[in-house]
Amino acid sequence: MSSILREGDTVLVYIDSKRKFIIKLERGKILGTDRGYVSHDDLVGLTYGSMVKTSAGVPVFLFKPLRHDYIHGIARSTQIIYPKDAALMIHLSGIGCGSRVGEAGVGSGALSIAIASIICDSGRLYGYDVSEKALEITRINLEKAGLIHRVVLSRRDVRRELDVESLDAFFLDIPDPWNAINSVSRALAPSAPLLVYVPTVNQVEKTVLALRESGVFQDIHAYEVLLREYSVEKDAVRPRTRMIGHTGYVIFARRVL
Amino acid sequence: MSSILREGDTVLVYIDSKRKFIIKLERGKILGTDRGYVSHDDLVGLTYGSMVKTSAGVPVFLFKPLRHDYIHGIARSTQIIYPKDAALMIHLSGIGCGSRVGEAGVGSGALSIAIASIICDSGRLYGYDVSEKALEITRINLEKAGLIHRVVLSRRDVRRELDVESLDAFFLDIPDPWNAINSVSRALAPSAPLLVYVPTVNQVEKTVLALRESGVFQDIHAYEVLLREYSVEKDAVRPRTRMIGHTGYVIFARRVL
Amino acid sequence: MSSILREGDTVLVYIDSKRKFIIKLERGKILGTDRGYVSHDDLVGLTYGSMVKTSAGVPVFLFKPLRHDYIHGIARSTQIIYPKDAALMIHLSGIGCGSRVGEAGVGSGALSIAIASIICDSGRLYGYDVSEKALEITRINLEKAGLIHRVVLSRRDVRRELDVESLDAFFLDIPDPWNAINSVSRALAPSAPLLVYVPTVNQVEKTVLALRESGVFQDIHAYEVLLREYSVEKDAVRPRTRMIGHTGYVIFARRVL
Amino acid sequence: MSSILREGDTVLVYIDSKRKFIIKLERGKILGTDRGYVSHDDLVGLTYGSMVKTSAGVPVFLFKPLRHDYIHGIARSTQIIYPKDAALMIHLSGIGCGSRVGEAGVGSGALSIAIASIICDSGRLYGYDVSEKALEITRINLEKAGLIHRVVLSRRDVRRELDVESLDAFFLDIPDPWNAINSVSRALAPSAPLLVYVPTVNQVEKTVLALRESGVFQDIHAYEVLLREYSVEKDAVRPRTRMIGHTGYVIFARRVL
Repeated sequence: MSSILREGDTVLVYIDSKRKFIIKLERGKILGTDRGYVSHDDLVGLTYGSMVKTSAGVPVFLFKPLRHDYIHGIARSTQIIYPKDAALMIHLSGIGCGSRVGEAGVGSGALSIAIASIICDSGRLYGYDVSEKALEITRINLEKAGLIHRVVLSRRDVRRELDVESLDAFFLDIPDPWNAINSVSRALAPSAPLLVYVPTVNQVEKTVLALRESGVFQDIHAYEVLLREYSVEKDAVRPRTRMIGHTGYVIFARRVL
Repeated sequence: MSSILREGDTVLVYIDSKRKFIIKLERGKILGTDRGYVSHDDLVGLTYGSMVKTSAGVPVFLFKPLRHDYIHGIARSTQIIYPKDAALMIHLSGIGCGSRVGEAGVGSGALSIAIASIICDSGRLYGYDVSEKALEITRINLEKAGLIHRVVLSRRDVRRELDVESLDAFFLDIPDPWNAINSVSRALAPSAPLLVYVPTVNQVEKTVLALRESGVFQDIHAYEVLLREYSVEKDAVRPRTRMIGHTGYVIFARRVL
Repeated sequence: MSSILREGDTVLVYIDSKRKFIIKLERGKILGTDRGYVSHDDLVGLTYGSMVKTSAGVPVFLFKPLRHDYIHGIARSTQIIYPKDAALMIHLSGIGCGSRVGEAGVGSGALSIAIASIICDSGRLYGYDVSEKALEITRINLEKAGLIHRVVLSRRDVRRELDVESLDAFFLDIPDPWNAINSVSRALAPSAPLLVYVPTVNQVEKTVLALRESGVFQDIHAYEVLLREYSVEKDAVRPRTRMIGHTGYVIFARRVL
Repeated sequence: MSSILREGDTVLVYIDSKRKFIIKLERGKILGTDRGYVSHDDLVGLTYGSMVKTSAGVPVFLFKPLRHDYIHGIARSTQIIYPKDAALMIHLSGIGCGSRVGEAGVGSGALSIAIASIICDSGRLYGYDVSEKALEITRINLEKAGLIHRVVLSRRDVRRELDVESLDAFFLDIPDPWNAINSVSRALAPSAPLLVYVPTVNQVEKTVLALRESGVFQDIHAYEVLLREYSVEKDAVRPRTRMIGHTGYVIFARRVL
């Protein structure tokens, strides 16, 4: 049923919402936290779902990492696409097992992981970025998530001609998506969806108008997702006091002939 | 590249955001709309992404239906889980190709379609409902979407013992989810996530408190998703005047031993 | 204590949230509604807070109209400033008894009523519009609210020189507020606030940038107010399903020398 | 026109949105900030709207404090009613010059200042609290704002009989408002509005149900106000990244006989 954890297995070590660590089990290694340390050796032989305690006696749960856990783990140094936005984009894209997908720019790979995790080994993600560093970080993050074999990463400016065609979907997260509409449209299969992510309203306007004028996109929509988390205590339920007020806007469109 | 449409193929006939019809091509059949009619015969031989005109000269685009198009097509007579919520739930669930998933109640199958579409033929969705009618509607909708072979539908009260175990995720959309925590927890693999959808704050409170007290769930969160669509015209960008102010709340938790 | 209602008194006849009527008591007159009629004669001699029944037996409450009731009564044919936005604008403006205030364009007088109601007889509202019809509607609405004596209405393009100075606040609701910054700044007392209301993000951008560049405004802020109403039933509290997703943006700035 | 600043005058010393100080001009006094200091002596003789520089050369603007500036100045140690909520409550209350208003509990006086500032010298605010310390802080804040003469502060549990009647409005900000409905209803004039502020959904439910059951309130509504501030730069307009996700709920109701 629940398989035994072995060396090389990936584990989400969960203390609380702010203390979540994805580790690869390795004999002799130690995970240090401000709530005490955990020895990898002690985890080998247990199962996912188990509880252990840190050296300081704090309970720790061992989880099988989910898609969104990897995103949480990615350094917040770069501006990543948040789970709330990634969730909508992927849902609207309709991609699944075997899908051939384009993505630019990959940034630090947060969205790449989410995409790669649902296209199966039979699918392929073509990830582009103009920054060698971004590609390298994405490669490392995809490797950690065990998904790199489904992805082809290339340094390329997607506003120029692309080297793929008949893609099932394209995800665009670059500063001037309106300049990539021509090249991206030629890479997309007819009827396939384009998903764009931009942080400002001005970019929404330019992108939507350019999509309309292109004549090769229809069913164009621009969305904003607001996510509120709730604080739940007996007889005292209320939204959290602080929330992320804004990340970016999601634009959807379908390729036509 | 883009394959030729043949009889039996499923097509999203798109006129505008309010006029979208999913049809199965059938010789001799007519699709009637308030913008004129379209003959199925005229679509056979074209490709996805093509444009034709209705009898009234209105342009119509032929799209390959995406996951969320099926949901849009489901009668709004029942309270369905909206795409914005389905997107977050599925994303947080981490399910993918080969996942074995539970769902109760299936309602009219809106969420079932979204789940079934990403678990591949190697996955399995166990859908439960206490209403024979709900199961029948779900069956019809899954058939339309070509996904019924991935789903086992059963009439069953999930608050009692379930007939499955080691599931990779469970989606719960019943009025009193707190009464199903015991049975559902036994059906879940250790570490696997539970996703609950409830329309009122009172249900959020009861569910979250029951999950905490159960001792077999950790990493419990309650969310609300607000989706705003934007109206984009040159020099005049603004959110739409009317929006859906509320659908329901999404609760996430992970099974522990 | 509660004074007796007499002919000429203004009454809010309240049946439910959608059936609210402001009337001036007049012998022999009848108020007809789809829940039955009410004779003015039957209300004379009662007090505010009383309950009567319509000819159809439906309970009706007699209230003393509040500031925001007049706004609700104004025909929704024109785009009015909603109570949620009027409330914030007036609060930020700091106006009170004796304030001398400018407003352009007055539209149908919804905001004018709110302003006039709190500046007392010692205050003065200078209301401008380029449309004679808008001024006429505003005049009628101010008369109904018994506030016309505090207001001077003029047909004038406020983008040109104004005939007032040292105002305590100015409210601007015109399509191109950036073109009125010069004239309005000269009408404002040093330190006095300007409140601008615009429906699109593009207007927010142009206005804020123009205010910054003008050199005569500081402490510039742009806000958006979202109002959710809740449906409250025992054990079933939730936001209303439908809400107003957008009305407009509120900009605040203070005049400097 | 713009009067000369003299000793004893109250000034809002504005550096930026986070550095705003309300001072009373006093010969020989110094205002120290992390952007340099300002000598009160240098401000006497200037006018509101003037710009001076701190000892560090940073520009400072002198404003006449507005209603909401005092609230901003109140220590955030206690949970205060935010301007967005105060604005709606006061707007819905319809109070103005001469209004006789009740408020409990006064907390630190943030709402008291807003109320007192618009009821004029002819109005009266009856402020209650069970905490002597809260009353003392409120008294100090009202004195700073020059409004104490309009307010009668009393230590009293408003869930018991009150010593006033025929009030034009009552503002209730206590943990269990449902227990104060009887006493408060007797203090209100018929038709007068009650405004309640509570932080949790559970309190909304209890209050609204109690108001309905009381039989002496009608036109009952529960609201939530969300305020987003925008970041405006040329070609880059977007909501601020962080926002206050929740403060509290506002309940409105009218007294009937």
